[in-house]
Amino acid sequence: MNPESARQRVRTVRSQLREKGLDGLVLTKPENVTYLTGFAGADSWSIVTKTGLYLLTDSRYIEQAEKECVGTTILQRAGKDPIAEACGRFLQKLKSVKTLGVEASISVGMYETLKKNAEVSLKPVAGIAEEPRGIKDLDETAAILAAAAISARAFGEILQQIRPGITENELAGALDFEMRKLGAENAFETIVAFGPNGSRPHHHPTQRKLKPRDAVLIDFGARYEGYCSDITRSFAFGAPTPAYRAAYAVVEKAQAAAIAVARAGVDMAEVDTAARAVIRDSGLPVYGHGTGHGIGLEIHENPFLKENAQGKLQVGQILTIEPGVYIPDKLGIRIEDDILITETGCEVITSECPRMPILQR
Amino acid sequence: MNPESARQRVRTVRSQLREKGLDGLVLTKPENVTYLTGFAGADSWSIVTKTGLYLLTDSRYIEQAEKECVGTTILQRAGKDPIAEACGRFLQKLKSVKTLGVEASISVGMYETLKKNAEVSLKPVAGIAEEPRGIKDLDETAAILAAAAISARAFGEILQQIRPGITENELAGALDFEMRKLGAENAFETIVAFGPNGSRPHHHPTQRKLKPRDAVLIDFGARYEGYCSDITRSFAFGAPTPAYRAAYAVVEKAQAAAIAVARAGVDMAEVDTAARAVIRDSGLPVYGHGTGHGIGLEIHENPFLKENAQGKLQVGQILTIEPGVYIPDKLGIRIEDDILITETGCEVITSECPRMPILQR
Repeated sequence: MNPESARQRVRTVRSQLREKGLDGLVLTKPENVTYLTGFAGADSWSIVTKTGLYLLTDSRYIEQAEKECVGTTILQRAGKDPIAEACGRFLQKLKSVKTLGVEASISVGMYETLKKNAEVSLKPVAGIAEEPRGIKDLDETAAILAAAAISARAFGEILQQIRPGITENELAGALDFEMRKLGAENAFETIVAFGPNGSRPHHHPTQRKLKPRDAVLIDFGARYEGYCSDITRSFAFGAPTPAYRAAYAVVEKAQAAAIAVARAGVDMAEVDTAARAVIRDSGLPVYGHGTGHGIGLEIHENPFLKENAQGKLQVGQILTIEPGVYIPDKLGIRIEDDILITETGCEVITSECPRMPILQR
Repeated sequence: MNPESARQRVRTVRSQLREKGLDGLVLTKPENVTYLTGFAGADSWSIVTKTGLYLLTDSRYIEQAEKECVGTTILQRAGKDPIAEACGRFLQKLKSVKTLGVEASISVGMYETLKKNAEVSLKPVAGIAEEPRGIKDLDETAAILAAAAISARAFGEILQQIRPGITENELAGALDFEMRKLGAENAFETIVAFGPNGSRPHHHPTQRKLKPRDAVLIDFGARYEGYCSDITRSFAFGAPTPAYRAAYAVVEKAQAAAIAVARAGVDMAEVDTAARAVIRDSGLPVYGHGTGHGIGLEIHENPFLKENAQGKLQVGQILTIEPGVYIPDKLGIRIEDDILITETGCEVITSECPRMPILQR
């Protein structure tokens, strides 16, 4: 993280604290700690006040924190000292802090311990670091582009390995292995679904073997330098049924419709509607999930493209566009690519990933 | 899960609720929900009362819940209805419940929402389901034995693939892939550390390439039918230094000492001490982590073998024994096997996994 980015991030968080009448914020969610301090390790919290930025960590991570942190005061707690106690005692010493925000994702057990030790007024708050994270700076964009390129290439490699008899689980493992070979790792649990399993958007890979003429759905992504890509490809192995072919064309058209309207200043709900309308007009069932979501340090983050989404797309957002058609126990098709929002439109950053309705053998 | 196991688990939780003066418990931690109901999906909570056992889920998981749940009433919430709100409204209707435990791992945001909607007295509690989970029944033991066998076999396979030039990241991916081919998946992020990287117990695999004469440390496990195994192997690639060879012998001896005393009725602290004393007596630095931990639905669960551990080992516990020697930026050796506690001693369930101080090429 370059120092100017680091300062900008802290400034944005502080301006939100002022708006909310808070003297500071305790960040406990690892991705938010990483975002503000640069530290990528675990079991560490960050504290932002009007003038300070702190990382509370322990001896295991001191070396890493010294390497990674930018503009941050590193505080070391004893390993046997629970983090919520150590944090509370530190806050007590910060005389200037009277009202403090705490991320609402903290466990109620930790929150109670923190409250007991801090002796300041605490208030659970959500979304303060998540909001600026929705707009990517240049370094973040570069990492996501690299993750996208790696996942696209890995997918091209495993297309060669798809043959009757391979299990969903083995194909998922093969894809993860290719991403490892390319210097990344899977950003989330790779989904591989054969045949009717594709109709469950959250399918977990099983020992089901690929049969000739099965449909295949693969949802996967790479994590590179902490940042995620997210791609879904669907295709028929061998000859697709006419129903599959028709549904595939509809999903492709729905995705293209959303991509065509996505640009800075457009209502997010409009982009969602553009894809959803194509499915609805075709007479096929409309998918129950969102049309897309931001990607970054987390695989699902701001912005969220949903039917009732508020707000407009902004330059520098990177998000998925992923309409689908699901017919329970029959068929599942989803096509998902990642786009970067620009002033005049958007750029598809996963276009190198092969896509086709049929995999011929 | 067989119905008798299911009933036994609920009985154990209810007897703890009585002791604590609670009329019921909301379980939000996925592993605890699985343990009590059999349901292995996500985004679902369980509620135990004096007479009822409920799973609160949504339409995505109804089919799965109907297949997996044992002795559980399945409640479906609308997808757009936040789970804490839906749960709160349900609790309000349960007239018999006045004081309710809630797992302390719940987020403070969810807890506040639940409180607002439930209109009963809530109390954060910890460890109620975690305690019985420490003793494995026969089905659980069988799943862990299968996970242990798969991880052992996968490790044997990748020994063939270790060659100069392979990166830590690629070797981790290769091991994960073997476990997938064998019908399982990695139970946690596989650690592969070459050379001095081995001295950091929480090392994350990097692009570092294996050099001739490097030491190697691999910490990995399989998840099979939801249950975990956990193994670490350390060895020198090619010829070890005398220091490595000596330290390896000490770690081996420390592990053997702990395994020799482990049996039902022995103080856990005594097992920890048995291993730690061997390292201390050798003059090498004593490891900062515990000597072992239970494995099951989670990779770290009851019991925890630490210096100040309270309580005795019990028949049916399955845990790791994993002493190590770490010399910062120089050397790291850890040997970790999984044992099942019996009346007369313990059984090493990962002994099929090759172990050796040197990998010859």
